[in-house]
Order: sequence, then structure tokens, then C-alpha cells
Amino acid sequence: MRLAMIGLGRMGANIARRLMGGEHEIVAFDRDANAVAALASEGATAASSVEDVVAKLAAPRILWVMLPAGEPTESTIGKLIELCEPGDIIIDGGNSFYKDDIRRAAAAKAKQLHYVDVGTSGGVWGRERGYCMMIGGDTETVDLLDPIFDTLAPGYGSIPRTAGRDAADDRAERGYIHAGPAGAGHFVKMVHNGIEYGLMQAYAEGFDILKGKSSEKLAPEERFDINLPDVAEVWRRGSVISSWLLDLCAIGLAKDHALEGYSGHVADSGEGQWTIVAAMEEAVPANVLTAALFARYRSRVDHTFGDKLLSAMRFGFGGHVEMPQ
Amino acid sequence: MRLAMIGLGRMGANIARRLMGGEHEIVAFDRDANAVAALASEGATAASSVEDVVAKLAAPRILWVMLPAGEPTESTIGKLIELCEPGDIIIDGGNSFYKDDIRRAAAAKAKQLHYVDVGTSGGVWGRERGYCMMIGGDTETVDLLDPIFDTLAPGYGSIPRTAGRDAADDRAERGYIHAGPAGAGHFVKMVHNGIEYGLMQAYAEGFDILKGKSSEKLAPEERFDINLPDVAEVWRRGSVISSWLLDLCAIGLAKDHALEGYSGHVADSGEGQWTIVAAMEEAVPANVLTAALFARYRSRVDHTFGDKLLSAMRFGFGGHVEMPQ
Amino acid sequence: MRLAMIGLGRMGANIARRLMGGEHEIVAFDRDANAVAALASEGATAASSVEDVVAKLAAPRILWVMLPAGEPTESTIGKLIELCEPGDIIIDGGNSFYKDDIRRAAAAKAKQLHYVDVGTSGGVWGRERGYCMMIGGDTETVDLLDPIFDTLAPGYGSIPRTAGRDAADDRAERGYIHAGPAGAGHFVKMVHNGIEYGLMQAYAEGFDILKGKSSEKLAPEERFDINLPDVAEVWRRGSVISSWLLDLCAIGLAKDHALEGYSGHVADSGEGQWTIVAAMEEAVPANVLTAALFARYRSRVDHTFGDKLLSAMRFGFGGHVEMPQ
Amino acid sequence: MRLAMIGLGRMGANIARRLMGGEHEIVAFDRDANAVAALASEGATAASSVEDVVAKLAAPRILWVMLPAGEPTESTIGKLIELCEPGDIIIDGGNSFYKDDIRRAAAAKAKQLHYVDVGTSGGVWGRERGYCMMIGGDTETVDLLDPIFDTLAPGYGSIPRTAGRDAADDRAERGYIHAGPAGAGHFVKMVHNGIEYGLMQAYAEGFDILKGKSSEKLAPEERFDINLPDVAEVWRRGSVISSWLLDLCAIGLAKDHALEGYSGHVADSGEGQWTIVAAMEEAVPANVLTAALFARYRSRVDHTFGDKLLSAMRFGFGGHVEMPQ
Repeated sequence: MRLAMIGLGRMGANIARRLMGGEHEIVAFDRDANAVAALASEGATAASSVEDVVAKLAAPRILWVMLPAGEPTESTIGKLIELCEPGDIIIDGGNSFYKDDIRRAAAAKAKQLHYVDVGTSGGVWGRERGYCMMIGGDTETVDLLDPIFDTLAPGYGSIPRTAGRDAADDRAERGYIHAGPAGAGHFVKMVHNGIEYGLMQAYAEGFDILKGKSSEKLAPEERFDINLPDVAEVWRRGSVISSWLLDLCAIGLAKDHALEGYSGHVADSGEGQWTIVAAMEEAVPANVLTAALFARYRSRVDHTFGDKLLSAMRFGFGGHVEMPQ
Repeated sequence: MRLAMIGLGRMGANIARRLMGGEHEIVAFDRDANAVAALASEGATAASSVEDVVAKLAAPRILWVMLPAGEPTESTIGKLIELCEPGDIIIDGGNSFYKDDIRRAAAAKAKQLHYVDVGTSGGVWGRERGYCMMIGGDTETVDLLDPIFDTLAPGYGSIPRTAGRDAADDRAERGYIHAGPAGAGHFVKMVHNGIEYGLMQAYAEGFDILKGKSSEKLAPEERFDINLPDVAEVWRRGSVISSWLLDLCAIGLAKDHALEGYSGHVADSGEGQWTIVAAMEEAVPANVLTAALFARYRSRVDHTFGDKLLSAMRFGFGGHVEMPQ
Repeated sequence: MRLAMIGLGRMGANIARRLMGGEHEIVAFDRDANAVAALASEGATAASSVEDVVAKLAAPRILWVMLPAGEPTESTIGKLIELCEPGDIIIDGGNSFYKDDIRRAAAAKAKQLHYVDVGTSGGVWGRERGYCMMIGGDTETVDLLDPIFDTLAPGYGSIPRTAGRDAADDRAERGYIHAGPAGAGHFVKMVHNGIEYGLMQAYAEGFDILKGKSSEKLAPEERFDINLPDVAEVWRRGSVISSWLLDLCAIGLAKDHALEGYSGHVADSGEGQWTIVAAMEEAVPANVLTAALFARYRSRVDHTFGDKLLSAMRFGFGGHVEMPQ
Repeated sequence: MRLAMIGLGRMGANIARRLMGGEHEIVAFDRDANAVAALASEGATAASSVEDVVAKLAAPRILWVMLPAGEPTESTIGKLIELCEPGDIIIDGGNSFYKDDIRRAAAAKAKQLHYVDVGTSGGVWGRERGYCMMIGGDTETVDLLDPIFDTLAPGYGSIPRTAGRDAADDRAERGYIHAGPAGAGHFVKMVHNGIEYGLMQAYAEGFDILKGKSSEKLAPEERFDINLPDVAEVWRRGSVISSWLLDLCAIGLAKDHALEGYSGHVADSGEGQWTIVAAMEEAVPANVLTAALFARYRSRVDHTFGDKLLSAMRFGFGGHVEMPQ
């Protein structure tokens, strides 16, 4: 199929490349002309503006927007809704908030456009391994785009098949699902990222406990000096907690045993936070996912005001003066 | 009554003073001779060793040990068990682990001694306000010691009486309870401290959120500049969250609006941790008390190894490089 | 002063009564005519509609809206903004979300009206004890309303004064503060309620651990049989964790030792949840406040789907079949 | 090698079978004679008692104990320490607490015996996939046993190798590590299980949020009806959160979409709890691992006493009566 890729960052460019490798035609645009030129040199049709993108596609157009969530995505899709003709399809492949999708899909529908949201996992490895995709939109449009998703997805690969799956819909087994109407794709992707935070923090805490066991705070006979790279490696081998994130722990620890190359300030994208808001809207307790998010907040401050207030109270009732250890 | 006070730190000395003010006689000992001399100048009988303490009391002796939990308490009580005669009473008024009480009470009983554990709350304010006491031991002994507890407790004071209380036992209303056999006093005190951590952290987080509202990370129209000392003060006045700990927050904030005098490293005594162990032994979920304890651990490290592992994973899947903000 | 009270539920009616007791004149309206008649019999001027309320006040009017947050407050204030004249003052005394205040204040200002939000704590005890108030709005208007707040607040009372407070503004000591522009009052009240959840859950977990200590799951020598009403009572007496919420625990336990009259389903108003959203917007970790909120969610379901998924995984790797105990 | 397997439950019998498949000789004992007969029919030498086991091995003996942690393991190893001769090797392959290993290893050493602890992951799938093993003990003994561990481990298999690993020790890559002195094996395994709880709860909460999105509590336009088996399946395919535990989720959901076959009561073995104790001994914050454990506790009670106390407080300040929804 012929489609536009608007936004040629790491994700957008690699998705375009995987599509071109699958015999699709790409009209490429980014506000960075070098990024456009690079992709054009690999076979894409260069476009010089959003208007030019629209001009270089025939109706019904397919336009994949792959930009940072928030203003960049919002303004570009707003412009596309203005420029497009009935029947055209706008795909938001970024990390948008699902309620923004619901709103934008309604605006698109008012102009007889189709809106599809695609939550994409796979990171920098996706071009090679394929992308795991969670898709929201109306069924007819999602079906029409199937050749695109089929190319991008990992396919069956060598992953063992799950016993007892219904025969009818094998898309999940090939790496993509039609999750529901517009917004459903990003909703499922959002929860995916919420889970990701929880998984990562579980490993982080576990390795912290392993590392702490060699702490000089413990009595000598209480201490072990554990080889953390070896632990990460061995857990990849037949253990219950083997996972792709553990593979990454093993890679990171093999390279830098003490992780001295990392500052310890951990960022979070909006999705972890949105997951907690969703949990609260549904009154679902989510202690693990929330604790994982808050650990990242905490990693980015030296001392909280709250910590100092604890000290002030302790001074108040016990005369304790808290000093750094 | 005549009794010994062994350990004349802030708590022990003040307890002795309140007892002397209530017409009790104190035989005072501490390994710091100055502390003994100070209390002797206020009317106590000075003792120069644990043996001397025992010699200066007539059977049945009453010996109140007020030392740090762990080795100091353990070795002193061990010595007393050796030196004492059948019928003597050993009181552990410190912050011992309740299972240590159970063990020591059995050792005392084997020599026909009585063992009483007293969990004491009130901090540096107790001498004036009276001490809240949770007592473990056999009934006969606890009853015999009643004049001591009666003197130490706050008494009815001006605190409004709770409607519907049974008339029989008014000790709780005067500020002390016989909680059960040996160990029960420190068990109740331990849970008291566990709750204390949770309460303190609730205020700490709330004030953190209030303070964060003036953060430059927020858009200007999202910001408020809230007077935190005034907030603490007004909540003392008819609000649902008024408490003695809030009084201490108000005092601390009035004195130092930005709490700049505090490092933010918050210590924890063993009792918070023991409370969580007790919860786990009973399979009781205690998310709030645990989170409060962990916030203190976290306050004492700059960056956890786990934080760095999160960054290593993020680099692994997304190529993110985490830098301090 | 003469003002309207719109909404005569438990809170609105009692606030009106305390104001009338302080020589203010009340024009009373509620959609329940009986509630209006009841208050009229105590001296209020009855109004039959919002229009009638407006007619029965002279400019500049003062209109206190005391309705459930959400639609009832929104629609009533919307109507008042239509009906009022420049210079009139609309007070939202309910539990509104502070961002709704900011929006409504802007709408009011566009019509030269003043908007004031008052977060009010004190519950059913407020009429007698006085109300703790956190106020948002422009300074001139808040100052103009001072006689109203002064009447409603507890005043100095018998609460010990905090050392070191600045002399200038004594309103906090009398029980109310001007927290900032419109929205700031409800923001501070929201955090107050977030803290309230945390405090309550700390006591709940502590008493759960005390109660669990008599569990038949423990070995007999590990068990204590602790008198919980007495524990709650004694902690009111000189302990570090004394508080008004603990007073309520003591009252509840004195009346019903096993709390058999309560179902264990615990509701939450929106404010706990909004507090967590605020914390996340500021990237402030709030593990205790969140765990407290989630415990309430959890109290309202028998089993989560997540629990069943845990069992499914356990069956998957270990062949464990989970049965109720 | 020739060794004894004492304890022929699911784990012990399968480990014995995998060893026999690898040309090792097994002397088999269990208090259930049928279990012994079954393994004898597959080629093992039957033993009728622990004494008989010892008699049927030549010095230096190798004795693998595979019994439930606690009393069964404790008493059997105690007996072996009595019966064995200098140079014999006792292996505890169960889920013992690492401090018990340290104590038992000292007792064994006093009789010139060697003690090795092996933490084993792999569950019912291990016989086929191989077992991931974490081993504690002195180096000479662990090296001597290497042919046994080599047979039991998965080996390199088809798992991609981690870049940058040191060439020296390839045991971790084949599925086992020598973690340190006695106790270190079970310590690492304990943390492994602590992490396992955290990972499982992260998935549990995520699927709870997905499922909750179809809740009738939400407004119709807020709801999605998400196919959970498909979500679990698609996340196995190229997503960041793919893992073996997710494979098990997919299997469980494929078989029983609503998981109606599970009660929702989730058990926990001791290891999750011991992990939290270890974290506290090291002052390491472990909010995620703790919340995961507490969710299991909570799954096993209908309503906590603490929930009822919350209701009692709410009634106290607001007159709220909490009823089941």
C-alpha cells in the first residue's frame, strides 16, 4: 500500500523502513529536512510539508502520524483534518492519551474521515523483531489497513503457540489486535506501559536487595557478595521470572557491573500516570503500578519536603536531630 | 513506693523525676556518674553499680530498667536475673522487641522473679503531660505496681471522656492499660509506633503536595503559593485531621517555614520494622505502615541501585539516556 | 451580614444555624420545601427558588451554595451567574474540584461577579465546635466576608497556641485561612481529605494487626487477646498518636467492640482521588495516601479479577489449585 | 554420579528422572512407598528409610533432600547429620530459609560434612526445560557436584546469548550459578520469588484495569469491551513486557476467558515474606514487592477489621452509614 509517514524520529523512520522492506510505498515528511532526505535515499518519496504529503497521495489517503504525544500530534492531526477529503484515513501511531483519540476521532468523523490509533511496543528493536500493535478504530478501516499491520508485526516467529486459542482470529498470534473503537488501541498500550513500570520496579527492588546483602551495614556473617550479572543471566535460563526486560537487565549488568554509567534519575512518560488515573476512574486498586511510578518521581529529587517535615516532627516529640549518615 | 531506675537518659531521668514528684523513692543508677549525681541532687539515692542498686533495695525489689533496646537492656536484665531474689520485680520500660520480653520473662520466672514490660509513649513532653503506658505481665504484679503507673500516667486531665465506656476498669482513661502477659505491653507499643510512622507520612505527603503546587514545573495558572505554617495551624482548629503530630508540624513550620534546618535523612527505630514483621506473621495487609517505613529508608540514600537498573533497562529498550534534571 | 444559604442538607443547615446564632440574617433555599420550612421556623427568611433568593437580597448580594459537588453545584452556580448583578458574591462551600472553581471564577469574573471557594472541615460536629475553613478568592472579597468566617470558625478556644507564630495574621489561629486565589481553598481542603484517608488507614492497619494477634492461625504461645477499646482509649492519653480521629475510634470501639455493625464496604468521596492526581501532576510520590485510597476500593469488591489471574499463573507454573481457606 | 533423592513429590521425582535421563544413578526414598516404587520402576534403587539410603551409598555420599521447608527438611537433615560420615555431602534442594541453611551448614561442618543449598526454579516444566539453579556452599563441594548441576540445568538452548559477558564462567549461561557460601543459593532464590510476586501482581493489576474498562460503573462512552485473551497473546509478540509469566497468563485466559474456575484466594509461600524481611534488614525500600505480597493476604479475607474501623470513623465524623453496594 501507499501511505505517508509524518514524523521520522527513531520510531517513525524505522516503521517506514520496515514497511518499505515489505513492499509498501512511503511518502515521508519531517520538519527536519535531513531526516526526510535520509529516508528518501532509501526509497521513500520526500515531501516538504503536510500539504505536500496530502498532495502526493491519492484518495483515499492513508496518513500515519508518528510524533510526540501532546501538542505536536494535536496540531498536525488538526491540520490533516482540515486538509483531508472524505474517506481519508488518519493514523496516530504515537503515545497519545486515549481520551484525546476519542475526541479527535469525533472531529475526524464530522468530516467523514477515519481515525485509527495504534499503540506500538517494541522500542528500538522493533524494526528487526517486528512491532507489537494495539489498534483502535472502526472495523472496516482497520481491516482495510491490514496489509500494513501484517508487515509491521513480528508474525508467528519461533514463539511457542498458546494452547487452546480460538481458531477464528489469528492476528494476536501474529502480533497485532483490533482492540475496539478509536481510543481502545492507545488504552491497551497505556496499560501495557503501566505494567511495564511495575515489572521494571520489581526487578529493580529485587536487585537492590541482592546488592544490599553485601552492605557494610550488616554484620560480616550476614553478608554475601553476590555476582549480579551472573544472577541476571541465570534467571534467563528456565526460571519463572525470565522475560525480555530481564534480558535487558542481563545486558546492562554484563556491560557495567555496578551500573556506574547511570545517574539514577529515572524519567516517566505520561502513560504510567494515565494508567493510575484510569485505575482510579474504575476504582481498581493498583498498588504495584502506582508504587513503581512513584519510585521514579522519588528518584528525581534529593530530599522531599515531606522528609524534612518528618524530621521536624521527630524533633518535636523526641528531641531527635536528624543528620546525614 | 521505693524502686530503682537503671538508665538515666532523657526518658529514664524524667520518669524518675515524675515518680519522685509523686512521693516515690528512687534508687538511681547509670554508667554515667554525672547523670546519677544530677538525680541524687534532686533527691534520689545514688547507686554505683547494678549490685549496689540491688543492695540498696529491700525485697521484694522493684527494678525499672530504662535502657536502649538490644544489648544494653539484654545484658543488664541478664545480670539482674542473676542478682535478684524470688519475688523481686524487673520492669523493662524501654523499647524492647516483644519476643525478647517473652523469652526474658520465662528466664525470670525460672528463678521465681516477676517480669513486667512497659511500653511508654510521650517523648520529651511526658514528664509534664504524663506518660501513656501499655503494660505486659502477670496480673498480681501489675496490680502491685499500680501506684507507680498511677503517678506516671496523665490521669483524666481535661480530655473529654469517651461515651459508652464500661465502668469497670478506668485505667485506660487515666492513661495506662494492662495489655496482657509479658510481651503484650511492648507489642501494643510497637503497633503504636507503626501507626505513628503511618500518620507522620500522611502529613508529610500532604504537605509535599501543597508545597509542590508552587513548583515551577507547573504552568503559572496551575500554581498556588500556599502558606504552609498557616495551613498547619488552621487544621488544628476544628478539622477532622487535628492531632498532636499536627501540633508538632505547626510548631516546626512556624519556626522554620522552609524547614531548611533539617537534612531530610529520617531515622527509624526498630519498632516500625517489627510492626511489619508482625503484620506478615498474621497475614495482615499493611500497605500504609510499610510505605511509611520505606519512605524513611529511601530518605537516607541518594540513589538506589534499583533506580540505575531502571535506567539501564530504559536504555536497553528505548535508547533513553537518563541524565539528572 | 445578610446572605443566602442555597442547599440545606446536614452541612448547609448547620452552617446557617451557626450564622444565625451569630446575628447574621439568612435567606434559605433548598429544593426540599420541608428543609426550608424547618430553617424558617428557626428565624431564616424562606425562599421558594433561586430567583426568589436573588430577589430577597439587596446588592451586593452574598450567596453561599452548599450542594453536592458536580452537577448540582455546577448548574446552580451557572444559574446564579446568569441572575446576579455586578459586585455580587457567589460562595461555593461544598467539596468542589478546585479546577472547577478556577473555571467558574473566570466565568463569574466575566460578568463582574466575585467567586469564593470555601473548603470546610468539621463534619456533623461543626455546628457546635465551629468549622475549619480554607478559603480561595480575591483578597478584597474575602476580607469583606470576614464577619461570616469569623462567626463560623471555632475561634481560639482552649487549644494551646503554637509557639513562634507571626503576629500579623491571626485568622489561622481562629480557624480559617485565605489560602490564595479562587480554587486555592478547595485545593487545600482536597489535600486535607487526602491526608485524612492516610491517617484513617494507618489506624485501621494498626488495629488490624492488634486484632490479628489473637488469630487462631498463630501458635497459642504467640497469641495475645488484646482489649481494643482500651487500647484506643489509652492512646488518647498522652501518646504521640492522639488525634481527633483516634477519639472517634475510641467512641466506635466502646460502643461496638467487634464493630459488627459495620459492613466493611468503605466509600470514598472524590477528594482522595483528586489528591493523587494532584500529586502526579507535581511528580510528588504519595505512597501512603494512595495506598489508603486503594484500600477503600479493595474493600468494596469480593475478589478482583487480578487475584484470579494470579491463581491462573500459579496453576500454570506449579500446578497449584487455589481454594478458599 | 550416584546420589540419593529423599522426597519424591512433584519436584523431587522429576529432578530424579532428569538425573537418571542424564546417566546418573538414584537411590530413592519417600515416606510414601508408592512414590518409591514408581521411581524404582523407572530405574532407581528403592530405599526403605533414611538409614537404608545411607547404607545404599558409598562414601563420600551425596544426599539430595527435596522436602517441604520447615519441620520436614529440618528433621531429615538433622537425622542425616547424625548418620553421615566425614566427607559426605547433604544438599537441601527445597525452599528453605537461608538463615536455616547457615545454621545447618555449621552443624554439618562440626561433623566434617558438607552442606549445599540449591534454590531451584522451573516448576512443573523443569523436567523438560531444565531447572534454573542458585547454589550455595563451599567451592570444592559445588565443583565436585558439577556433573549433577550440568545435567539438571537447561544448558545454552536456543536462548540468545547476552552480549559482553565475561568468558571465564559459563555456568550462568547454562542455567546455574554458585552464588556464595551456604545460604547464598536460597537467598538468591528467595529474592527471585519476591520478584516473581511483584511481576505477577503487575500483570494482575494491568488486566484488572483492562477488565474494569468494561464496567457498568463507567458512562457508556467511557467503556471498552476488550478481549483479554487476545491482549495477553499479542503482548507475547514483540512487546516490552513479554515474559514467561505472560505466557502463562495467555494460556490461562485462552482456556477460561473470565477465569471463573479460580476462587481468587491466592496463597503465598514463605519466600515473599522473607524477601521483605531481608529488605528491611538492609533498609532497602521495596514497595512493589511488599504490595504484591499484601495483595495476596488481602485476597484471602472478606473484609478486614480495619475496613470496619474506617466505617466507624466515617460514621463518627460524618454520620455516614456504609452499606454494601
